[in-house]
Amino acid sequence: MDREKIKKLLEDVKTGKIDIDEALRTLRAFPYADLGFAKIDTHRDLRKGFPEVIFCKGKTLEQIAKIVEKCSSQNAFVMATKADREVYEAIKKVNKDAVYHETAGIILIGQRSGAIGKKSILIVSAGTADLPIAEEAAVTAEAMGNVVKRLYDVGVAGLHRLFDSKEELFNANIIIVIAGMEGALASVIAGLVDKPVVAVPTSVGYGASFDGLAALLTMLNCCAPGVAVVNIDNGFGAGYLAGIINQMGEEK
Amino acid sequence: MDREKIKKLLEDVKTGKIDIDEALRTLRAFPYADLGFAKIDTHRDLRKGFPEVIFCKGKTLEQIAKIVEKCSSQNAFVMATKADREVYEAIKKVNKDAVYHETAGIILIGQRSGAIGKKSILIVSAGTADLPIAEEAAVTAEAMGNVVKRLYDVGVAGLHRLFDSKEELFNANIIIVIAGMEGALASVIAGLVDKPVVAVPTSVGYGASFDGLAALLTMLNCCAPGVAVVNIDNGFGAGYLAGIINQMGEEK
Amino acid sequence: MDREKIKKLLEDVKTGKIDIDEALRTLRAFPYADLGFAKIDTHRDLRKGFPEVIFCKGKTLEQIAKIVEKCSSQNAFVMATKADREVYEAIKKVNKDAVYHETAGIILIGQRSGAIGKKSILIVSAGTADLPIAEEAAVTAEAMGNVVKRLYDVGVAGLHRLFDSKEELFNANIIIVIAGMEGALASVIAGLVDKPVVAVPTSVGYGASFDGLAALLTMLNCCAPGVAVVNIDNGFGAGYLAGIINQMGEEK
Amino acid sequence: MDREKIKKLLEDVKTGKIDIDEALRTLRAFPYADLGFAKIDTHRDLRKGFPEVIFCKGKTLEQIAKIVEKCSSQNAFVMATKADREVYEAIKKVNKDAVYHETAGIILIGQRSGAIGKKSILIVSAGTADLPIAEEAAVTAEAMGNVVKRLYDVGVAGLHRLFDSKEELFNANIIIVIAGMEGALASVIAGLVDKPVVAVPTSVGYGASFDGLAALLTMLNCCAPGVAVVNIDNGFGAGYLAGIINQMGEEK
Amino acid sequence: MDREKIKKLLEDVKTGKIDIDEALRTLRAFPYADLGFAKIDTHRDLRKGFPEVIFCKGKTLEQIAKIVEKCSSQNAFVMATKADREVYEAIKKVNKDAVYHETAGIILIGQRSGAIGKKSILIVSAGTADLPIAEEAAVTAEAMGNVVKRLYDVGVAGLHRLFDSKEELFNANIIIVIAGMEGALASVIAGLVDKPVVAVPTSVGYGASFDGLAALLTMLNCCAPGVAVVNIDNGFGAGYLAGIINQMGEEK
Amino acid sequence: MDREKIKKLLEDVKTGKIDIDEALRTLRAFPYADLGFAKIDTHRDLRKGFPEVIFCKGKTLEQIAKIVEKCSSQNAFVMATKADREVYEAIKKVNKDAVYHETAGIILIGQRSGAIGKKSILIVSAGTADLPIAEEAAVTAEAMGNVVKRLYDVGVAGLHRLFDSKEELFNANIIIVIAGMEGALASVIAGLVDKPVVAVPTSVGYGASFDGLAALLTMLNCCAPGVAVVNIDNGFGAGYLAGIINQMGEEK
Amino acid sequence: MDREKIKKLLEDVKTGKIDIDEALRTLRAFPYADLGFAKIDTHRDLRKGFPEVIFCKGKTLEQIAKIVEKCSSQNAFVMATKADREVYEAIKKVNKDAVYHETAGIILIGQRSGAIGKKSILIVSAGTADLPIAEEAAVTAEAMGNVVKRLYDVGVAGLHRLFDSKEELFNANIIIVIAGMEGALASVIAGLVDKPVVAVPTSVGYGASFDGLAALLTMLNCCAPGVAVVNIDNGFGAGYLAGIINQMGEEK
Amino acid sequence: MDREKIKKLLEDVKTGKIDIDEALRTLRAFPYADLGFAKIDTHRDLRKGFPEVIFCKGKTLEQIAKIVEKCSSQNAFVMATKADREVYEAIKKVNKDAVYHETAGIILIGQRSGAIGKKSILIVSAGTADLPIAEEAAVTAEAMGNVVKRLYDVGVAGLHRLFDSKEELFNANIIIVIAGMEGALASVIAGLVDKPVVAVPTSVGYGASFDGLAALLTMLNCCAPGVAVVNIDNGFGAGYLAGIINQMGEEK
Repeated sequence: MDREKIKKLLEDVKTGKIDIDEALRTLRAFPYADLGFAKIDTHRDLRKGFPEVIFCKGKTLEQIAKIVEKCSSQNAFVMATKADREVYEAIKKVNKDAVYHETAGIILIGQRSGAIGKKSILIVSAGTADLPIAEEAAVTAEAMGNVVKRLYDVGVAGLHRLFDSKEELFNANIIIVIAGMEGALASVIAGLVDKPVVAVPTSVGYGASFDGLAALLTMLNCCAPGVAVVNIDNGFGAGYLAGIINQMGEEK
Repeated sequence: MDREKIKKLLEDVKTGKIDIDEALRTLRAFPYADLGFAKIDTHRDLRKGFPEVIFCKGKTLEQIAKIVEKCSSQNAFVMATKADREVYEAIKKVNKDAVYHETAGIILIGQRSGAIGKKSILIVSAGTADLPIAEEAAVTAEAMGNVVKRLYDVGVAGLHRLFDSKEELFNANIIIVIAGMEGALASVIAGLVDKPVVAVPTSVGYGASFDGLAALLTMLNCCAPGVAVVNIDNGFGAGYLAGIINQMGEEK
Repeated sequence: MDREKIKKLLEDVKTGKIDIDEALRTLRAFPYADLGFAKIDTHRDLRKGFPEVIFCKGKTLEQIAKIVEKCSSQNAFVMATKADREVYEAIKKVNKDAVYHETAGIILIGQRSGAIGKKSILIVSAGTADLPIAEEAAVTAEAMGNVVKRLYDVGVAGLHRLFDSKEELFNANIIIVIAGMEGALASVIAGLVDKPVVAVPTSVGYGASFDGLAALLTMLNCCAPGVAVVNIDNGFGAGYLAGIINQMGEEK
Repeated sequence: MDREKIKKLLEDVKTGKIDIDEALRTLRAFPYADLGFAKIDTHRDLRKGFPEVIFCKGKTLEQIAKIVEKCSSQNAFVMATKADREVYEAIKKVNKDAVYHETAGIILIGQRSGAIGKKSILIVSAGTADLPIAEEAAVTAEAMGNVVKRLYDVGVAGLHRLFDSKEELFNANIIIVIAGMEGALASVIAGLVDKPVVAVPTSVGYGASFDGLAALLTMLNCCAPGVAVVNIDNGFGAGYLAGIINQMGEEK
Repeated sequence: MDREKIKKLLEDVKTGKIDIDEALRTLRAFPYADLGFAKIDTHRDLRKGFPEVIFCKGKTLEQIAKIVEKCSSQNAFVMATKADREVYEAIKKVNKDAVYHETAGIILIGQRSGAIGKKSILIVSAGTADLPIAEEAAVTAEAMGNVVKRLYDVGVAGLHRLFDSKEELFNANIIIVIAGMEGALASVIAGLVDKPVVAVPTSVGYGASFDGLAALLTMLNCCAPGVAVVNIDNGFGAGYLAGIINQMGEEK
Repeated sequence: MDREKIKKLLEDVKTGKIDIDEALRTLRAFPYADLGFAKIDTHRDLRKGFPEVIFCKGKTLEQIAKIVEKCSSQNAFVMATKADREVYEAIKKVNKDAVYHETAGIILIGQRSGAIGKKSILIVSAGTADLPIAEEAAVTAEAMGNVVKRLYDVGVAGLHRLFDSKEELFNANIIIVIAGMEGALASVIAGLVDKPVVAVPTSVGYGASFDGLAALLTMLNCCAPGVAVVNIDNGFGAGYLAGIINQMGEEK
Repeated sequence: MDREKIKKLLEDVKTGKIDIDEALRTLRAFPYADLGFAKIDTHRDLRKGFPEVIFCKGKTLEQIAKIVEKCSSQNAFVMATKADREVYEAIKKVNKDAVYHETAGIILIGQRSGAIGKKSILIVSAGTADLPIAEEAAVTAEAMGNVVKRLYDVGVAGLHRLFDSKEELFNANIIIVIAGMEGALASVIAGLVDKPVVAVPTSVGYGASFDGLAALLTMLNCCAPGVAVVNIDNGFGAGYLAGIINQMGEEK
Repeated sequence: MDREKIKKLLEDVKTGKIDIDEALRTLRAFPYADLGFAKIDTHRDLRKGFPEVIFCKGKTLEQIAKIVEKCSSQNAFVMATKADREVYEAIKKVNKDAVYHETAGIILIGQRSGAIGKKSILIVSAGTADLPIAEEAAVTAEAMGNVVKRLYDVGVAGLHRLFDSKEELFNANIIIVIAGMEGALASVIAGLVDKPVVAVPTSVGYGASFDGLAALLTMLNCCAPGVAVVNIDNGFGAGYLAGIINQMGEEK
């Protein structure tokens, strides 16, 4: 298609429809267009209804409010992560449609499109304190139109709780494992299933957990293959990654 | 199926075909069967032709030879990773069909089944020194029946080499990015494509690369979503993970 | 016992007392029962009166209150660790029997059973600032029914304080050593006694103590054998570990 | 010149213009003068109007106020970095000419001299949260008399935003890249331009960004040559370094 | 007993049996005797037949040979750890009774006493490469007179191998878990049993295993209570610790 | 002296002046007396007037108050370090003679003895923010009776400030160098003088100073010999160490 | 110029000199040309005579030989870094003009162009063991056409050696400081001069130098402004960076 | 004295004894002379017979041989550290008087002056593997003219060995403690004596000793005051530091 556009341009130059200077200007903007970054990005948003994501941490309330204001004027959906209640209130002022998923720390503006396909993502968390990250992953994947199931508080200290739910494990198309402390849950699950496992270390723990480092290393060294690791506490990243994997092979 | 087997067992008990003690013995081995670990493992191997994987590092030549001998008597395919030439020669003695992929450090025994589906995995590596890990990923994914394409030596120091191949980037179903030093290639590619990116940090580099730590942290902190990270130098893990993701939605 | 239950089930199937579908349903719940996780857990609690342990850090007050409410409705004893006064007040509202061990940061609900056996655990701490962790270990071990003796503030900067109490060291069945800063106390005591030493590094210190890392490494590298290390500030873990070791060989 | 001064002194001694004791006093101050520390420092300030820089972090408000008071009595310009509003108010009391650049955390007293030369420093930042450090660099370089251009929020997650501004990249005499998280922006830009790149890792991020360590390592391992790295969050250092490089070859 | 010895000495002084100077000399050697270091050490060796342990790493062959020569002249048993074949040959020259446990890297001289009690230590290892450390623990515990059972190669990547042996897990008095890579095996086992678990991280692995650091942190952060951690690759320490715990409550 | 005491005791036993049981009781307390811990400690305090030191960090106000109350009832001098104003007020209540050195964070009770000898300790600090640690060292050394001179704010960014005071450097008997950030000041001074240099890294700095780690490593790797390093921010330790070195060879 | 080329192409299309398909082919290679990657790279090499740089570490001898062969067929100059004698011999076989700078570990093929301008780069190294990195920087900068002066073995342990050469310090246009161990030399020099200082930490040292980490942190925390840091042992990077800075404002 | 020299020079200028150019030349060399670096260094060597120290690690045999050749032509004594036998043989060729202290890794050329004073340095090492570092300290201190006593293999695993030698501990003027693994020996000794303790962590150990990091942190966090820490394995630094402290107050 882009090839056609350039061919047309060259023909227009040849026939004198546009003069050389104008052609030059058009070609000046061409490289990244040809690379398709911006346009594809824009198209994808319009087509899938997937929200621009605003990472709130480190931004002032004023900055967030302005960004949301601009985004929501251009997009049907806006999504903000790592948002506390204060952020929510600032956003609420510029857009009263903002919905706050408090545990997940996510703010959504606009209607989410319906679920795509029937395959589900299972989110498994080790402990109650991992809930915020688990919900961040869940809300993200749902916002992308995925069917999400939750299996919380099934840490390795009592594996039977996990095995009680083995049907859910085997039925999932992809599994997100959220665990802090020693993070061994990812290894155990990856040893049981043949689906991709997205492992999210959390900063839950104390002492030699070193704010999630222990769980991160555990997950990276997982001896069962099929495990993808994301950053500590990166529920959004896990939800997004699982989301695009889950939708592979689905009609959109 | 497993349900059927147990039903049959119970019927046999009822009809007196087998006595209670024998049923008890059978049921004693049941839990893990019900969990489906071993069997599924075995079935998957026979069905997909996917090799048992022997991690050679840290094992003696004698141990490796014995494991290969046993594996190859039971499986159509055997796969050994992180194998140097010495390992290959030890294996060659117990199984003359062993084929050595030297750059990948992988030994394969047995015929691989044909490719499953048409979707391809693209393996992108940053530098020539990353080749062994890139090939480890490539040979692994191919051994699983995936179509693999290679795009090597396109590090961020000369992004035009990467952009020359943007069609290949956009056509791939999933991309494995192999990079040492600062590992920025994963971020750049994840910013361009909407497919999952499996990022493999390598220990290539010196000084503050700290044997791959720098690339690992870069990849974990990737601000573009859709990136799955595996352990440093874990070409096998990346190939396997990309392989199972690539086959999602494919008829097998 | 579990074997008997299954035998009975099979006999019931044989004699037609229960039909095959019902047997199938019963067996479906069997694997983890056979593995003995949940049941044994439950039995152990009822039998020993040892409390379910709730790790409070990272949980909201609402979550803690709900968990305590549910636990105390099912168990004679409930134990919560790393609990500050705010947590205590939240628990107090749902269960007025809650007793707060403030220095230990532990909340107990219900009567503890009497001490099992006469062998004692000696808890030795290096400094006054280690007290909270020492008490966490002490209260935990006592809650399990152990005889606990305390020997506080005997750091290596004044070894004579320790040697004054050498009788207590030699009489203990097992010793828990609590120390921050350089953590050398564990090495010194392990060099003196032939009993197991459970070493707990604490985050007490500053500068190059790196929040307990220095003490942790010291204890792991202890050249005197017989030392078991637990996580930094993990008084509960040390108390629990020493508790089960102390009760080995005791009639319960 | 200094040689001339001493020669003159010796001649004055010879001719008796000054007596030996006076010469001795003068020479007593000579070593560092000959080394050129103090004088050159003083001269450079008077000549260039470049402010003495007060690093506010870790100093009490009283100390800062006293230092500013003394500095502003001796210098036409005073500059204080890492200053919050509280610091500004303390300084305002001792010198009402103090101007506060709030985002940059910089306080300036006195008139800055006009821009030196026409070559410009381009400051590129990856995200909105990097703004304070970017502005710290910008205000510093401007205070030194440099022409500064800003190109903010062009992180690698959307490279097209960067490529839209490639003219600005190519026209800059030197580029400061400010990035947290994975810090890959420095590598990408250094791969595009042949000008020096001053890379500033920021502590923006979470989890395995380890307060800027990830970005720091990325930048240090940059495989594209021409990158100079400064400390995490050291906007001032980057602005100063770029400032003196930018003025090389300029008439002053 | 020591009290009696001193009482006797004092009586001898009173009755003039020994003069004051001689008593003084005797008392000069008293403090540590009273502290019971050396003597108890010696007595314990004679009584239990437990060998003096020589840590071979970092010592020259000459030093080791001399130490062994002296030890074996005074003790019925000598034990040397971390010994390669070269060390064995050097020891063999000074004592031809030396027996080499090659996988364990342990050399024993002299007859071991028979097993004490019937309770057994179970040693569980995750992979084949962990064998040397597992054997170091096993040979150590056996040398102390413990009954040792081995359960090797049951890593979490295939949990069914572990569950096949759950009877052995439940029957053991104490369990040593040896694991490298992510070290999750300790967590899984500690979640299953109510006996003490001694966890030994090994340096087996690569990349982000950081020579055993990943496994060490995993084990320290184990969320199931009852886990004691020793140094990376410290098979001897684990064997010794489990040995003394196992013998608690046994008649010796 | 201690020898004499025991001799006397034995003579008293021989002559029947004291009976055997009493002698036994006396000897029971003997080991550490013979080792000289407690008594020597006590004697040293009385003789030198050097205060017992209470490390306040991590202790509750109640604990500190009680310790101070007990110490000041037994000692002429009491010293408390890392004490903030809140601590001071708590101490003031139990002992109104308490004097607060606010910058140093030290509280002293009682009169210090006069200076011992004439040799002086020079305390050199790199920046204004290092003042609290420098003063902690200074007040400590003075409390021990040393002559202390101060040379503050002479960091390596302007070495002429240091060289202006080279006489003071050469005249000092021992030098304490206090520096954060890169901590290079210790290397520079150790390269100039032939006296011992006690180097104190401080946590002053940001980013890659990693709370004093950078300065600590710099000082440990100092290529000029004669440098002793203490913990990060350990002004007390440096003052004490320099104090006992300074008094070597002095008549006390 | 590139603008001109495209304008010319468009005019040729207009006038029919080249047909549309040919123009399309030419434009297909255009994006990165417009971005200036490949072409500018090529042009710069031809114009400046600056060699393509091959990083040898981690590449096989065969790979290096092939890369050199291809490079030297296309470029007048080829440069290979981190090359040992074995690499040199492999290169020598494919190109007999290869010249080996052994200390620098650099191989150059082809004539270097003459020096550009008169401003010089001064390379200062702390110790003899830093020589390889210093020479790597020196040979690199010279290969780019810079005048390089060397000032070796002037570490901070004997600052007078440095001050003896202060004229050279003041005369240099830019200074590269090479230092291992504590790396304080960069701070000292940056405190003396007002020119940019490129600091290269080296892995020279032992113990807590942690393979260059100590020197790296020192240099990053340098309190004197104007310091640019590169990777540990990155002599090439420093030489290149200093080279492009040195040529700023020069007529080329 | 230096003042006098300059006064004399000025008088000579005044009286015309020397002309201005000559005075200028003399003054040119003055700054560092006035700072006393070079001269004092030279004088100290001649006066004390203390050897120039050559750190051999990282230098080529050729470099070492040349440095030794030059040093030994100018100094009565030459000292080289971290020297293996190969280095010794290279030095032997250029100076046949070289004496090799093999365990210490030190080479000495020339006669050492007799011991200064009678106060002794006690060197205490924890284990046999620490011997090389202990001897490096011992030989260094002896080469400086100190009386050195050795107390080896008295690690904390058997404290009675240490207490047997308490007289030696109390009699020493200063104590050097050499320990690897957990390094607790320094804490224990510093708790016993009131003399300065120079603590040397060694890289002896394995696993979580992290090449001496564990011992280093232990020693830095020592809760007993009076401990000076030097770099890991820095026997020379400890010997030198203890040497100059030991000679304080001695007539030389």
